[in-house]
Amino acid sequence: MAAFSCPSSYVIRCSSNRDNNHDQNMKNLNNIKISGTSPSPRSGGKPDMLSQKTGAATTSVASVTKNHSLTAERIRQNIPTKKQLVDPFRQGLIIEGGVGYRQTVVIRSYEVGPDKTATMESVLNLLQETALNHVWMSGLLSDGFGATHGMMRNNLIWVVSRMQVQVDQYPIWGEIVEIDTWVGASGKNGMRRDWLIRSQATGHVLARATSIWVMMNRKTRRLSKIPEEVRAEISPWLIEKQAIKEDVPEKIVKLDDKAKYMNDDLKPKRSDLDMNHHVNNVKYLRWMLETIPDRILESHQLSEITLEYRRECGSSDIVQSLCQPDEDEILNNGVSQDINDITILNGFSLATEIMKGNGLLGSFEKRPLRYTHLLQTKEESKNEEIVRGRTVWKKKIPTMLFST
Amino acid sequence: MAAFSCPSSYVIRCSSNRDNNHDQNMKNLNNIKISGTSPSPRSGGKPDMLSQKTGAATTSVASVTKNHSLTAERIRQNIPTKKQLVDPFRQGLIIEGGVGYRQTVVIRSYEVGPDKTATMESVLNLLQETALNHVWMSGLLSDGFGATHGMMRNNLIWVVSRMQVQVDQYPIWGEIVEIDTWVGASGKNGMRRDWLIRSQATGHVLARATSIWVMMNRKTRRLSKIPEEVRAEISPWLIEKQAIKEDVPEKIVKLDDKAKYMNDDLKPKRSDLDMNHHVNNVKYLRWMLETIPDRILESHQLSEITLEYRRECGSSDIVQSLCQPDEDEILNNGVSQDINDITILNGFSLATEIMKGNGLLGSFEKRPLRYTHLLQTKEESKNEEIVRGRTVWKKKIPTMLFST
Repeated sequence: MAAFSCPSSYVIRCSSNRDNNHDQNMKNLNNIKISGTSPSPRSGGKPDMLSQKTGAATTSVASVTKNHSLTAERIRQNIPTKKQLVDPFRQGLIIEGGVGYRQTVVIRSYEVGPDKTATMESVLNLLQETALNHVWMSGLLSDGFGATHGMMRNNLIWVVSRMQVQVDQYPIWGEIVEIDTWVGASGKNGMRRDWLIRSQATGHVLARATSIWVMMNRKTRRLSKIPEEVRAEISPWLIEKQAIKEDVPEKIVKLDDKAKYMNDDLKPKRSDLDMNHHVNNVKYLRWMLETIPDRILESHQLSEITLEYRRECGSSDIVQSLCQPDEDEILNNGVSQDINDITILNGFSLATEIMKGNGLLGSFEKRPLRYTHLLQTKEESKNEEIVRGRTVWKKKIPTMLFST
Repeated sequence: MAAFSCPSSYVIRCSSNRDNNHDQNMKNLNNIKISGTSPSPRSGGKPDMLSQKTGAATTSVASVTKNHSLTAERIRQNIPTKKQLVDPFRQGLIIEGGVGYRQTVVIRSYEVGPDKTATMESVLNLLQETALNHVWMSGLLSDGFGATHGMMRNNLIWVVSRMQVQVDQYPIWGEIVEIDTWVGASGKNGMRRDWLIRSQATGHVLARATSIWVMMNRKTRRLSKIPEEVRAEISPWLIEKQAIKEDVPEKIVKLDDKAKYMNDDLKPKRSDLDMNHHVNNVKYLRWMLETIPDRILESHQLSEITLEYRRECGSSDIVQSLCQPDEDEILNNGVSQDINDITILNGFSLATEIMKGNGLLGSFEKRPLRYTHLLQTKEESKNEEIVRGRTVWKKKIPTMLFST
């Protein structure tokens, strides 16, 4: 029941600018429910939300325009108020006995990189989109951040605390993929959302993803239990099924100034902000990946990312991106694990490597590389963590044989 | 019959790196057509394309893998070889008596900015996508850049020389829009491609766009006439219909170092490169817009852009973005024109302004702002133009009345 447009968690500081924006969204939504000037029953009994006016004459003209434009917006968006089983425009349908969602998507020309395969950024975007469309189909959607009606009444928003994506093969330009997504319980007050991306032509699973979500009070910025009325909305949708089996999630260590690579003075731009006025996930990923040396980006393909969100990043923050390769892990890694990885993920086998004259040692060069990442705000007194990350990289199939 | 993934024109220099990539793509495409090692009849009689091997034993294993992967790619992409009238996955259909293309698109959550409306960048992306899908449906598509089979045989690619987009209202998050696109002749050796974006719910035209394309020899980088066999492919698709009426296109002056605003040392990143290994259009637009002061970006909405492409920008170029406001135009602009613009584009009328106590003079503040732009490479000896641009900005509806 959530998208990850609000990648924040735990201790959150919020600029007043951001708070104003939240309030504005809230007021807009309340305005939709009413056509006059009295407070909506959905506004949580806060008549002051509509009474903050700068002058009667001025506001009345503008209010009419605003209400008219909000009604037009509602017609143009057409968010369903009841559960839908099929959406022909989103190419979505409800699956898994009425609780899961499947959307068919064509990989677009601008979603792929120079190698004509979808980028990890595009994959993250499609996960966000299908998650939101799942809530859209449920009839529970209240706003652009995936909150349900009950959450709105309780001033709650979703925040993502962890996200993991494994890509075996990237979708290619023009490919039709099916993205399945569903939700499950995570502890007493958390929710898990998983995804599978499948090639329609071959039926192969191309990618898997999982994420953990919690609720936060929009005003106090404190984590919240799930209120009963929200639990009643969500419970019918929860199933036990996991896209990625993982008994004990790998812990991501915190990097410090001794990290091997660092990009400094990163500043969010207007175009990096999402509907929630936060820096979006894709920008986090870019900041992380741009810290990795070019020679690695050229010779390797990102096969897995794990992100742990600590704090939201606003438009005024200045950010540092740290990155450290797991050299120890490369030296200590078992051979058999390594060979399996190569076979599965690159379509390459040890036999092929030996036939090519590279022998067993040659195959070591293709072992995955692993990096630990940290994005943090850069402040005079103290840095604050935004996201910790882990990335795993597989050697690309050597295309240089064909271009020399 | 073209997308604008290759935004280059006229005098083009190309790094050897880029050339290799082109050749590699060409080889890949040729490999698709054959299952052995003899040259394809479509390769333009260039057997050397497949004979550049570094060693028999090494290449034979890799070739098998490569050919296998190319066959798999072809199955996954499934580019049609005959004209299609409907594509249920792209939600596309052929219109205009068999020559135009219409695609229904839902505006996605990550395509909108903080105000929940699509960004100009997303609009540009959707224009590119629908243009390519038009060629896709035609059965003429050879590669990711919109070239036809005849163009491939003649070593020709499309290059865009001019692009103009007018947005009356931006599509909003979740809105279903219909994008129509078609092509027409432009002079003897050019092609025009137009677009209309319509809200499905209201039927209103939200945006209009037009572009001019010419052909270039992929190897010599010189502009080319349209060969007869290519003319035969394209001619049946040309119609006379214009999305934007414009008798004499406005000339964009060239800015120099005296421009009021300048961003320096802009460097393309890996994630800015498209399938064609060029910096993509969206990045050009970002570089232009980021030069405009924040206070304008916050108070105004981009309503029109015109781009004139001069030269392609590769990954190793360092770029300068210059920007100059048309202050004279603001002072000299006629009152009646201004009032019409306000009425049509902001849903605001002069009467409303006067009622609000702003009077006639108040409405002047809402007149559109115009900027001239230039992106150029920054070199020791000489700067070279990449794109000239014009942008027009309308004042946003004053939402501050509701957030105070």
